[in-house]
Amino acid sequence: MPEQVLIYSRFPKAMMVRIGQRYDLMDAAGKPPNDMFSAGQLAGVRAMITAGGTPLGAEVIDTLPALQAIVCYGTGYDGVDLAAAARRNIAVGNSPAANASSVADIAMTLMLAVTRRLLPADDYVRSGNWSGAKPSPLMKPQPGNPGRRVGVYGMGEIGRRIAARAAAFEMDVAYYSRSRHDVPYRYVPSLEALVEWCSVLMIAVRAGADTHHAIDAQMLRKLGADGYIVNISRGSVIDQDALVAALTDKTIAGAGLDVYQTEPHAPDALTAFANVVLTPHIGGHTLDSHVAMQNCVMANLDAFFAGKALPYPVK
Amino acid sequence: MPEQVLIYSRFPKAMMVRIGQRYDLMDAAGKPPNDMFSAGQLAGVRAMITAGGTPLGAEVIDTLPALQAIVCYGTGYDGVDLAAAARRNIAVGNSPAANASSVADIAMTLMLAVTRRLLPADDYVRSGNWSGAKPSPLMKPQPGNPGRRVGVYGMGEIGRRIAARAAAFEMDVAYYSRSRHDVPYRYVPSLEALVEWCSVLMIAVRAGADTHHAIDAQMLRKLGADGYIVNISRGSVIDQDALVAALTDKTIAGAGLDVYQTEPHAPDALTAFANVVLTPHIGGHTLDSHVAMQNCVMANLDAFFAGKALPYPVK
Repeated sequence: MPEQVLIYSRFPKAMMVRIGQRYDLMDAAGKPPNDMFSAGQLAGVRAMITAGGTPLGAEVIDTLPALQAIVCYGTGYDGVDLAAAARRNIAVGNSPAANASSVADIAMTLMLAVTRRLLPADDYVRSGNWSGAKPSPLMKPQPGNPGRRVGVYGMGEIGRRIAARAAAFEMDVAYYSRSRHDVPYRYVPSLEALVEWCSVLMIAVRAGADTHHAIDAQMLRKLGADGYIVNISRGSVIDQDALVAALTDKTIAGAGLDVYQTEPHAPDALTAFANVVLTPHIGGHTLDSHVAMQNCVMANLDAFFAGKALPYPVK
Repeated sequence: MPEQVLIYSRFPKAMMVRIGQRYDLMDAAGKPPNDMFSAGQLAGVRAMITAGGTPLGAEVIDTLPALQAIVCYGTGYDGVDLAAAARRNIAVGNSPAANASSVADIAMTLMLAVTRRLLPADDYVRSGNWSGAKPSPLMKPQPGNPGRRVGVYGMGEIGRRIAARAAAFEMDVAYYSRSRHDVPYRYVPSLEALVEWCSVLMIAVRAGADTHHAIDAQMLRKLGADGYIVNISRGSVIDQDALVAALTDKTIAGAGLDVYQTEPHAPDALTAFANVVLTPHIGGHTLDSHVAMQNCVMANLDAFFAGKALPYPVK
């Protein structure tokens, strides 16, 4: 008989097909597990799958007395109360690097689209204004990307791939993270100095209490009127109200965002801007990265149920 | 007294400011020179600036009896009747590589935007459908770019830069051009074989009689239902009617286009598709590449008026 696995976050069914072929899935579909299942049903649950960004605190963990493994689908685990899991000696795993290339691709897509004004350009063609030779102030030449300074905040799997891509675009790449890495990019010893130096700031840092609102009004002023910000990490890293204010008063030039403070929700204040590009948290949303993430999830579950250590543990 | 230079194509005034500081510009603004100036005025014109894509045949050249230099603003010279120029022993120059990085950037922007469905994604956020959790068939996960096969057609300055960028995206890169180049990408000995192999076809070949409609209905069938085409070269390389048909019947997956058969005009049949990204020939349209192109134009003009060979001749 297959082992039972609770699905905690709301996932599209297609993402769970392969995992469901191996395990007996109890799908809470984003609702509190004890609303969806009886205490008796939950009593036997030893492992669960969650999306790393979904809040998962002690009050939920306590409804699962036999829980011993929390497996995050994706690289993030910021929603998981790691201290609460540790108190219960619950192993926590994730899918490191599985979607890193796909997320780095979206970071570059957002950067290119916002700096080269792709959305106004496409609109200019589709509206017929190009055919009509109707001038558009948005179509004036802008600075190009070769030679532009890209600051990468965070040098994990995603940050490395963003840096490698940006370097191929003949951009000048530097980074800040808590520690220096063995990478061929210049290390800047503070976030403040990185932001002052760069004209495109790429947010690729792991979300957490230490990075909450790391980008605030003051940082955005340092980024400056020629500066762009791209966020593919988590909405919590940027003070979203400060970002809206900085776009409103042209403190910065534009933004490309895949993540938001409260998802799935991009505030009207953001969606009104022509100099932003907004995607609905699709960074890791490709067929290949889903397969890679599912491989990590299944490897973690298989090891757990075999009594072994998780191959992809959260450290 | 500054030398006189005829401006043949219609250029935004901003592009000619620096050149106008050195030369006495006679701006025909895209109209036949003999409509704009008297035969007496044209009699003294020894050099002209044109956009390489603008048709410039013997009938125009013959209205300029003293003409000795045709200087193309940009890398292209497909509009210039080189045989007619040669008969009159007129030197023809261009701005090689000056905008290559900027054009390669737009090629990658178009590829990323169309494969990652950037326009539907931005629309999904702005429309509120994401907040409303309204499902969108366009937002289903698609194949990612890492590991995808990119075929680069043409390995000049732009093709090389596209290939370098695509390689940094962990893509598998191959190319076809008339001859093999000393580049670290696999050479495929025919366009047909390249198109059959790849899933993203990048058109970076120089326009001319030999490449006219090189991509026709048959080639698009070879590209196939998972295939994308990106064109940043000239519209003439693709049979645009065949492309519209291939998009209509889903013979190919999508297209990213910066150039069209007749500019400035993208037909309604193209602008109706959700799986295309359309830009108004902005490949080389950055401040830096305009400066670089102007530097080439001025270097060619300076050398010509000094009685020297053009430093950037069309070969």
